[in-house]
Amino acid sequence: MADAGKSIADQIKEQGEIVRKLKAEKAGIDKITEEVSKLLALKAQQGTDKDEKAGGKFVLKTAKGTRDFNPRQMVIRQQAFDKIIACFKRHGAETLDTPVFELKEVLTGKYGEDSKLIYDLADQGGELLSLRYDLTVPFARFLAMNKVGSIKRYQLGKVYRRDNPAMTKGRFREFFQCDFDIAGPTDPMIPDVECVRVVTEILDSLDLSEHVVKINHRKILDGLFEACGVPETQFRAICSSVDKLDKSPWEDVRREMTDEKGLDPEKADQIGQYVLRSGQDDLVEQLLADTKLCSSKSAVEGLEALKLFFRYAELYGVKKRVKFDMSLARGLDYYTGIIYEAVLTNQNPEEGVGSIAGGGRYDNLVALFDPKAKAVPCVGVSIGIERILAILENREVNLKMRTVETQVYVAAAQKNLLEDRMKICTELWDIGIKTEMSYKANPKLLGQLQTCEEQGIPWAIIIGQSELEKGVVKLRHVVSRHEEEIERTKLADVLKEKLSAPVF
Amino acid sequence: MADAGKSIADQIKEQGEIVRKLKAEKAGIDKITEEVSKLLALKAQQGTDKDEKAGGKFVLKTAKGTRDFNPRQMVIRQQAFDKIIACFKRHGAETLDTPVFELKEVLTGKYGEDSKLIYDLADQGGELLSLRYDLTVPFARFLAMNKVGSIKRYQLGKVYRRDNPAMTKGRFREFFQCDFDIAGPTDPMIPDVECVRVVTEILDSLDLSEHVVKINHRKILDGLFEACGVPETQFRAICSSVDKLDKSPWEDVRREMTDEKGLDPEKADQIGQYVLRSGQDDLVEQLLADTKLCSSKSAVEGLEALKLFFRYAELYGVKKRVKFDMSLARGLDYYTGIIYEAVLTNQNPEEGVGSIAGGGRYDNLVALFDPKAKAVPCVGVSIGIERILAILENREVNLKMRTVETQVYVAAAQKNLLEDRMKICTELWDIGIKTEMSYKANPKLLGQLQTCEEQGIPWAIIIGQSELEKGVVKLRHVVSRHEEEIERTKLADVLKEKLSAPVF
Repeated sequence: MADAGKSIADQIKEQGEIVRKLKAEKAGIDKITEEVSKLLALKAQQGTDKDEKAGGKFVLKTAKGTRDFNPRQMVIRQQAFDKIIACFKRHGAETLDTPVFELKEVLTGKYGEDSKLIYDLADQGGELLSLRYDLTVPFARFLAMNKVGSIKRYQLGKVYRRDNPAMTKGRFREFFQCDFDIAGPTDPMIPDVECVRVVTEILDSLDLSEHVVKINHRKILDGLFEACGVPETQFRAICSSVDKLDKSPWEDVRREMTDEKGLDPEKADQIGQYVLRSGQDDLVEQLLADTKLCSSKSAVEGLEALKLFFRYAELYGVKKRVKFDMSLARGLDYYTGIIYEAVLTNQNPEEGVGSIAGGGRYDNLVALFDPKAKAVPCVGVSIGIERILAILENREVNLKMRTVETQVYVAAAQKNLLEDRMKICTELWDIGIKTEMSYKANPKLLGQLQTCEEQGIPWAIIIGQSELEKGVVKLRHVVSRHEEEIERTKLADVLKEKLSAPVF
Repeated sequence: MADAGKSIADQIKEQGEIVRKLKAEKAGIDKITEEVSKLLALKAQQGTDKDEKAGGKFVLKTAKGTRDFNPRQMVIRQQAFDKIIACFKRHGAETLDTPVFELKEVLTGKYGEDSKLIYDLADQGGELLSLRYDLTVPFARFLAMNKVGSIKRYQLGKVYRRDNPAMTKGRFREFFQCDFDIAGPTDPMIPDVECVRVVTEILDSLDLSEHVVKINHRKILDGLFEACGVPETQFRAICSSVDKLDKSPWEDVRREMTDEKGLDPEKADQIGQYVLRSGQDDLVEQLLADTKLCSSKSAVEGLEALKLFFRYAELYGVKKRVKFDMSLARGLDYYTGIIYEAVLTNQNPEEGVGSIAGGGRYDNLVALFDPKAKAVPCVGVSIGIERILAILENREVNLKMRTVETQVYVAAAQKNLLEDRMKICTELWDIGIKTEMSYKANPKLLGQLQTCEEQGIPWAIIIGQSELEKGVVKLRHVVSRHEEEIERTKLADVLKEKLSAPVF
């Protein structure tokens, strides 16, 4: 099997081409299987070779679809989180936290077709557990468990989906969600519009101002299906076809409805006349005058709700950001009213497009957990931070950025001053000054000063034997390289004063 | 089987007593098995009854050994994190983050006997994954993977252990670790002592000043076993017996060594003459004069290291906090030098005692991940925050505490002012003021003012139809109930001024 003249990697590449070609040609399954097994054999061989080379070690990587955050990425992430949290607090939210895994039953039946993407934990005896798929279902479980009838809460946390990762586009298997939800009885649409206001405030504060928040309403979708004569049992299936309109042309979606899901082609065409439309309150008014659609009570209720939504959106200054998109469906089972999805527009194509936030109203989810089926109406929105971070990291790729906050570096000009450096560090730590020194017993002065410049540390204290005997130390302003002599006993006070002044 | 006169719960309790009694009496296995099966049958029956009562719903709870953090607990947690992070930054650390799960192979063989406590993910096709057991091993994997030879990093994150939870004592299956590690070549003991300084700074800043940091050195333990004639193959097994001395008396530990692990009783007695000793640098000096112990090169190296440790600990102002405890062993496989464990002393017995931080030097861990087995010497410490939080939550149980930061509440004195409230909120959000209003269209004034008082919101704006027509609003200082009339157009400016002044 092995081709002595070529590397295993090249052979794998060639064999991969063969398989791809056969698949593209829709060749016979036997032929494809045969060539795939050759490919797998080559890969296994490569694996063995690698193992031998690395002394039996496995491939050094993070799990598929996950990544580390290095210190620079952490600075960018923390800055983004700070802005997001500031917005949530500006709207009066408090925060809570839930475990990363839940009883499997908590998640079961909440995510429709996407349930297959849930990570389960191995059965090691005891309870059956799954990693959380979002923060919404655990939040609803929290409300029911603690009998909380009303709360405005935010939560930042990682969630887990066994999806196909596309990490350059910010699609991961482990990723952050930043959620803001308003739970409890309210008058119609007031909190629903505030959620959109929160999204736009956050995207603006992150300088992602070119975005649009698409909205739709579950009752309009249901009413539309009803008015077009779709049997109620097929609502969810047809809805999930409609959901694909953001990626596929109408012809493909129509074919799925008729060929795969057996919908009467005439009914599919009727649906097509609605779901391709988008607009603002003008579209709402048009549809309210559409006698066919308005034969459905559900549709009328949904349209009236959106009419109010646009009125409030104007008062909250976000109307220009909102687009009523009749094809917006969102897969999750638990939405009952308005649904949102924020997308970036006019972005660099390299960064990819797509949803950057989403949410909606889910009035019945908490009741699923409550022993007495007590409902707590909820509406909320979830910001997906990974795609935002990809954009921010890309923007700041050439920016010099500090990842440590050290204010003072204690350096020695000669040997045998380790203990004196230690004493000064102790003194400065005691008064809360961010202080570092070299971990070498006798470091070279040049190396120490280089560290200060590379790390952007503003001040260096330089000690020498004769100066210490005179009771003085040198204080160096790193950027200007200006040095001054300071009395050892006044060092702490001088530094406190220098550091309270703005750093230049 | 069922006893009609008693509730299932009572029957379970009684049957449980029977089983416990039989076990205590060391009754025959058949008899015990019989009674246990009765107990299980009762429990199954109870489960069914419960299911019926709850309309087929499962028990509403978080996974065993995990908990939610409510908003109040989040405030306490965040305050603690802020102090911990401030200390890490004061010592010049940057931060990073790693995924919550790793390839199973990354964790394999790193935790000795504790490896059985690792949570595995279910095999759903693809890679075999495990939840991280600590932050140290992923950190070492990060260093090797990114070829980082030198870094000072902190990381806060949740880790997972399938241990027996004791949640009232702060022992969970999901819990936070706050890690500080110094990686890279250094001169001896300088970073090792700084880690202890970091622990004491943090515990002091959290007002947990009554603590002691126990230290020992792997080379002293190994040297001691060598000097006492323990075969090298038994070092780890005997070490793990020694580790139990914090919970068990010497007699029990000795019995485990001789009866279970087959150690010569005479050798066990020799070990006992060392491991029960503790002290400071005076003990180090005594042991350096102990010819038997010093027959081991390893022991001498370890003792010399601790001598230096105490010298530096004095300079860093932490010597009084340190206790050299020869029984401190710590279970993890990867330590190679100094080991630490911080324990609270003189605490309220309700809060439980035990380790609150731990760590040590692990010079060979990174090499396990590096394809060329390149070593990166590391030392670090891990603060366990759960027990600390239990203490802080307990202390502040009667403290009134704000969980939201809202500064201004926009209230209406009459009906039909929803849109005017919305406009004012928008105006205040636009200039960054934390603002809330009622989600009711026509809320009662009294209820709105009550919300302000309950939530500790400092300012309320009260609008009325006639005032709006006059171009004024009322600004109410909530605590004093003092009200003043303000021009509507100057509202934003007045509030900005009020809010920049300290809130009283």
